[in-house]
Amino acid sequence: MGKEGIRYACKIDLEQDAAEQPYFHNRWHPDIPSVGSIKNNEVVKIECHDWTGGQIKNDDSADDIKNVDLTKVHYLSGPFDIETAEPGDVLLVEIQDVQPLQEHPWGFTGIFDKKNGGGFLDEIYPKAAKAIWDFEGIFCSSRHIPGVRFAGLIHPGILGCAPSPEILAEWNRREGELIQACAHMDRDVALAPLPTNVHAGSASADIKEKVGKEGARTIPGRPEHGGNCDIKNLSRGSKVYLPVHVKGAKFSVGDLHFSQGDGEISFCGAIEMPGVITIKFTVMKGGMKQLGMKSPIYQPGPVQPQFGPGRYIYFEGFSVDENGKQHYLDTTVAYRQTSLRCIEYLRRFGYDDYQIYLLLSCAPVEGHIAGIVDIPNACTTMGLPMDIFDFDISPSAIPEKRDLGACAKASE
Amino acid sequence: MGKEGIRYACKIDLEQDAAEQPYFHNRWHPDIPSVGSIKNNEVVKIECHDWTGGQIKNDDSADDIKNVDLTKVHYLSGPFDIETAEPGDVLLVEIQDVQPLQEHPWGFTGIFDKKNGGGFLDEIYPKAAKAIWDFEGIFCSSRHIPGVRFAGLIHPGILGCAPSPEILAEWNRREGELIQACAHMDRDVALAPLPTNVHAGSASADIKEKVGKEGARTIPGRPEHGGNCDIKNLSRGSKVYLPVHVKGAKFSVGDLHFSQGDGEISFCGAIEMPGVITIKFTVMKGGMKQLGMKSPIYQPGPVQPQFGPGRYIYFEGFSVDENGKQHYLDTTVAYRQTSLRCIEYLRRFGYDDYQIYLLLSCAPVEGHIAGIVDIPNACTTMGLPMDIFDFDISPSAIPEKRDLGACAKASE
Amino acid sequence: MGKEGIRYACKIDLEQDAAEQPYFHNRWHPDIPSVGSIKNNEVVKIECHDWTGGQIKNDDSADDIKNVDLTKVHYLSGPFDIETAEPGDVLLVEIQDVQPLQEHPWGFTGIFDKKNGGGFLDEIYPKAAKAIWDFEGIFCSSRHIPGVRFAGLIHPGILGCAPSPEILAEWNRREGELIQACAHMDRDVALAPLPTNVHAGSASADIKEKVGKEGARTIPGRPEHGGNCDIKNLSRGSKVYLPVHVKGAKFSVGDLHFSQGDGEISFCGAIEMPGVITIKFTVMKGGMKQLGMKSPIYQPGPVQPQFGPGRYIYFEGFSVDENGKQHYLDTTVAYRQTSLRCIEYLRRFGYDDYQIYLLLSCAPVEGHIAGIVDIPNACTTMGLPMDIFDFDISPSAIPEKRDLGACAKASE
Amino acid sequence: MGKEGIRYACKIDLEQDAAEQPYFHNRWHPDIPSVGSIKNNEVVKIECHDWTGGQIKNDDSADDIKNVDLTKVHYLSGPFDIETAEPGDVLLVEIQDVQPLQEHPWGFTGIFDKKNGGGFLDEIYPKAAKAIWDFEGIFCSSRHIPGVRFAGLIHPGILGCAPSPEILAEWNRREGELIQACAHMDRDVALAPLPTNVHAGSASADIKEKVGKEGARTIPGRPEHGGNCDIKNLSRGSKVYLPVHVKGAKFSVGDLHFSQGDGEISFCGAIEMPGVITIKFTVMKGGMKQLGMKSPIYQPGPVQPQFGPGRYIYFEGFSVDENGKQHYLDTTVAYRQTSLRCIEYLRRFGYDDYQIYLLLSCAPVEGHIAGIVDIPNACTTMGLPMDIFDFDISPSAIPEKRDLGACAKASE
Repeated sequence: MGKEGIRYACKIDLEQDAAEQPYFHNRWHPDIPSVGSIKNNEVVKIECHDWTGGQIKNDDSADDIKNVDLTKVHYLSGPFDIETAEPGDVLLVEIQDVQPLQEHPWGFTGIFDKKNGGGFLDEIYPKAAKAIWDFEGIFCSSRHIPGVRFAGLIHPGILGCAPSPEILAEWNRREGELIQACAHMDRDVALAPLPTNVHAGSASADIKEKVGKEGARTIPGRPEHGGNCDIKNLSRGSKVYLPVHVKGAKFSVGDLHFSQGDGEISFCGAIEMPGVITIKFTVMKGGMKQLGMKSPIYQPGPVQPQFGPGRYIYFEGFSVDENGKQHYLDTTVAYRQTSLRCIEYLRRFGYDDYQIYLLLSCAPVEGHIAGIVDIPNACTTMGLPMDIFDFDISPSAIPEKRDLGACAKASE
Repeated sequence: MGKEGIRYACKIDLEQDAAEQPYFHNRWHPDIPSVGSIKNNEVVKIECHDWTGGQIKNDDSADDIKNVDLTKVHYLSGPFDIETAEPGDVLLVEIQDVQPLQEHPWGFTGIFDKKNGGGFLDEIYPKAAKAIWDFEGIFCSSRHIPGVRFAGLIHPGILGCAPSPEILAEWNRREGELIQACAHMDRDVALAPLPTNVHAGSASADIKEKVGKEGARTIPGRPEHGGNCDIKNLSRGSKVYLPVHVKGAKFSVGDLHFSQGDGEISFCGAIEMPGVITIKFTVMKGGMKQLGMKSPIYQPGPVQPQFGPGRYIYFEGFSVDENGKQHYLDTTVAYRQTSLRCIEYLRRFGYDDYQIYLLLSCAPVEGHIAGIVDIPNACTTMGLPMDIFDFDISPSAIPEKRDLGACAKASE
Repeated sequence: MGKEGIRYACKIDLEQDAAEQPYFHNRWHPDIPSVGSIKNNEVVKIECHDWTGGQIKNDDSADDIKNVDLTKVHYLSGPFDIETAEPGDVLLVEIQDVQPLQEHPWGFTGIFDKKNGGGFLDEIYPKAAKAIWDFEGIFCSSRHIPGVRFAGLIHPGILGCAPSPEILAEWNRREGELIQACAHMDRDVALAPLPTNVHAGSASADIKEKVGKEGARTIPGRPEHGGNCDIKNLSRGSKVYLPVHVKGAKFSVGDLHFSQGDGEISFCGAIEMPGVITIKFTVMKGGMKQLGMKSPIYQPGPVQPQFGPGRYIYFEGFSVDENGKQHYLDTTVAYRQTSLRCIEYLRRFGYDDYQIYLLLSCAPVEGHIAGIVDIPNACTTMGLPMDIFDFDISPSAIPEKRDLGACAKASE
Repeated sequence: MGKEGIRYACKIDLEQDAAEQPYFHNRWHPDIPSVGSIKNNEVVKIECHDWTGGQIKNDDSADDIKNVDLTKVHYLSGPFDIETAEPGDVLLVEIQDVQPLQEHPWGFTGIFDKKNGGGFLDEIYPKAAKAIWDFEGIFCSSRHIPGVRFAGLIHPGILGCAPSPEILAEWNRREGELIQACAHMDRDVALAPLPTNVHAGSASADIKEKVGKEGARTIPGRPEHGGNCDIKNLSRGSKVYLPVHVKGAKFSVGDLHFSQGDGEISFCGAIEMPGVITIKFTVMKGGMKQLGMKSPIYQPGPVQPQFGPGRYIYFEGFSVDENGKQHYLDTTVAYRQTSLRCIEYLRRFGYDDYQIYLLLSCAPVEGHIAGIVDIPNACTTMGLPMDIFDFDISPSAIPEKRDLGACAKASE
């Protein structure tokens, strides 16, 4: 830090196609060339694309969501070489700030079409929908979901260091086995490497082809490096401890969120935006062994929106699905039921279900694992902060049906 | 409220066998006779047994845990008739206070033997263990897990109204189907009705036999009424909205916890204790329809221990199990991995794994569903409050191996 | 701690006159005999009188407040000898719990008559008034101030160790000088030693006479030992570090409050009650020098009611009094104006001014020193938590005049 | 809000003398010409000078502080006409964001020389000193006060609407009377109108002369309009309700602080900086009567640094000054003693007193009015958050004297 401001390690050009800009990439692979070097203990600013690389428009149709090209997403900024980092070290990433781009004061939340992406509740809500959020300082509001307004718990959805070749091979092995085992299901259970629309930064044609064949897709977070964790509390002031697997760490970041709910249930579920993140990088030599670390850990920053525990309504859900089938300690089923209970509650005030599904994805709802041992039922809860609403949604309120408009819908 | 103090609707006798006291029962069944009547808007105190009915001793052996008789547990206080309550109503239960019994200032946390109860991590930690916790006002500490001390977020593990005959039949149908479907597994996946050691309060022999044959076991929480939800934040000041399914509601409560972590991972995982709960009951006529309610909802009270977001360390876990197998969006697998990451971290300070397993079950750890849509990996996090430790456990601390004793173990 | 519960170091008898019970005293003096010994590191329970020793009744008249005998107040429990404590040590007092007496589930807040006690706003509100508060678990509510309900931040108003003879002499010197200097004012500015109604515990007649002549009155807190600090956040879980001035420390405690607002503006302003406090005592040898300590310091406990910063309305006040006179950086004047601004705001909803004056004294309002250097105006703020009201008091609410009854008034 | 970003109502030029830029002024007077018009419900960005207009340098000498020209300060941005605002209305100012200028990532805290400005503790600390703070995203740290780092609770020190001629006359009357009454004191007790270095924006020479003769100085906050309130919690997300006294409101804002402690004790005590504030303006017609308002009120935003109540050390102070003189309920004296107690505590770790005096001015310390009725002693407390320090400062820490450098000092 000095008098002149902080160095930008990466800038984006919103007018140009993300796929043509060399500072970005959309696969995890150790051979993607680094786009620059950052000193140990240096603070830099890094600009990031929204996760769709600009495919989504600020309008009132969800056709862009419906037809989104999911092979052209997650243009991550990087990879950056961090000086002195070596395998076995831990890279301490302190997120000093995250901000939207001043010239792009809006973001979006989407529900994918069940046939193109889907989401956590796609069996029930199969159609595409969208909400545009306007940023007003620390707050956001949406013409597509009137009656709510909240401060963003702003954070990156994705950050991590490059895998080593061995780790990459392990990812491809175990995800490949799952794909094979589930070949009979009529949905994607994981995404295999795909040469289409690979972006490997400034890689040569050879490397790019290799990255296309082997490179891990960016959708899932993975235990060895973090990646797309989508942790809503990994916000400003947080310290993340990342395992280093290759020389220089090859750190990448992207998929910034203005806000997200626990679970990010609609998949395109946070308030997605391009923006700029300020990070301090510190290398902990031999940190993986010292911390006994297999997966990233983090400490949140001291600053978060505070509603007071008594200002939440919590909904409960259990491992019994909507068809009355009893599952065995299935937390995923329980959280789906929890989400549905919340939708049923809010629709009494005049929202349609797609608006609520969007809202629960991006508002700061708390998703807790309450009990996970009381066979056969896991119990999960979802906490909805009442203070994000303009009107009283407490259980003691008389639920008057309001005219609350509609979210953006896709054409049939 | 008046000058004289609050009426006790139920008292326990710690010297007598719970099974012989008429104010308690250990099955859910509409025919269990009510033990008393409570007025609409009345406040009463209700004393409750610990969930094992006193089987566990304040000593340094875990043999009592190893040999616990799991057919003799969950002696719930009640059922109570709430005046004016009818099916379709909602019973608003305001928890005004929960306290240990003055003459019993201690509780326990246990890890069951894998062959008798088990727990969330029983594949890895199959043996019985125990920690005794001494209560010091709002705090607790344990000679079996030195170095930690925390304020209890005190709450009931179980509360709910009796099922109607139809709901009871549905429970037995769906859980029976699961049991049949999993007959090949070498573990209990659900517990069928069991006549052994049934306690049906003051029921006649006929009724008691019926309750034994049909009555739902108390271990699982269930969506229609709540029951054993084990929600750590349902503490003092909380308002719980419970569906009413039978005339008079037939409300029961029990399984008090001095503290619990999200998930209650060791199964006997909270700090279990006998105690007294103060509740105000209010009937919301027609409340189920008015609230659009299928499962209980609740609002926490305004009073909780506050550590500051920056005073937690969060561990991340994903749907890849300890054998490297990739699961599909399995939140339960992810949370198990998250728990293991936390154990690996803490053992560096000198704790043995069983001590940590006990601690994560009962300390106020936060278990969040972070991302549940990034196929194939669900991501969960577990937040460990640093301020419950006497020494520095932050990632920047040098992990010195301390002599931290041992928890109570079972004899071989 | 053991299985049997905690030792009571002192019990009160609500039926007997406080002045006749030997475990209490109402002056600070080193010669008052100790009533018992407490071990270093011991935890004990101590029962305490309400600060008036039972003069105030649970009724709807404020005549008892109007006619209260202020020479018969502050019957403190103690003094207790703490083993090993010597002058120069610090006594670490950990407040593990504070509770009302089970058989006395109510408390009171009073406004003294200007001619008998007065208060912070007695120029404007000179008459006696009273509110009775019923305790409902962690909450309280009052028939005299309908529409509010809040969780208590329960605490002792008074705790401290006995002064040495030298310190006592210093108190009498400096307070005597103030009394002399202000002899022309028509109000008490400090209270000189007074033999009337002295209670010196089990002291002999000689000692009692000496205590009456020299003993410091208990109304003010004093820098050398704390005493009547009336700090609302010194609640359960707090650790207080007290200077020790005499052998054995001679610790006393009393004046328990179910709740209090910053400033305790009506003087009899907290929710006063008899109760029981659980304390762990630890002696820090040589602690005064080690901590560089002249006055007590404390750390609050981790548990407090949480409303969220956005759920407060803050009122501003400045050093310009209600007659338009400009004072120089006078924080006391500023806080009086701040209190008046809050009264003006709340009266629009139907409360009368005396009700609000009572409420601001005992509800958990936050009184901050905002700016104390901007000559000539100090700026103070008072934060009123909106969530303690049944109805919407936010600035955006339409202020409908409600029928909100009245507080107890004194007869003319 | 739209796609293009928010309109700037005012920009500053850091290279040019603030006194020569027309968008600023340094007196309160109704005749200062408005610099622009803002629509009801509009959101704008407003750039602001630091309060000294750039007199202080990023260096290691405090000579600039010692010699600061206090007639050339508080260059406020504005006044702005808010459309439709008229006397009797309330202007609702929602602070949507406050940020430092990207090209000026640092601020300063100063202690004025007793002979030129002074401060709350100038009797004890009469010399000039300075600390430079570097901004690192939401955090700041200083080479002049090593060992601390904290997130800013960023806010404007000054905001308010112009006084009417009648209100201005009243200010001059009452402050003039104080100045006359205190003429014998050897310090400024208030600042009379002063023609020297008046900046009246783009006013004509006639108006400028009038503003110089009558215009109110900007140092004190005042009850009728707020002004220089220096409220540390009036941060991002806050809503401030300001009385309107002239047509168009004539709103001004300035004196941005990256952080401040309650009291801002060193006078130049916050972390002073130039920056940009984003505000939404809404006119409440007839609001003063509707809200019963004489002075501004505000609601904080939902986002603040959270340390947890148990992470503060609170120091107590009373109305007995450092010479042993007893004052009567003097909160100002009490808070001065409280500050000294905190300085004595922290110096044990190696800081010098001037470093601590600076730190307590700008770090987020909590200054509470605890008890204000216990004659003759007011009791105030100052809460110091332990987590802003790199090392353990808790009472249980062994206070090792560290080499903690020095703040910038003035030459003799």
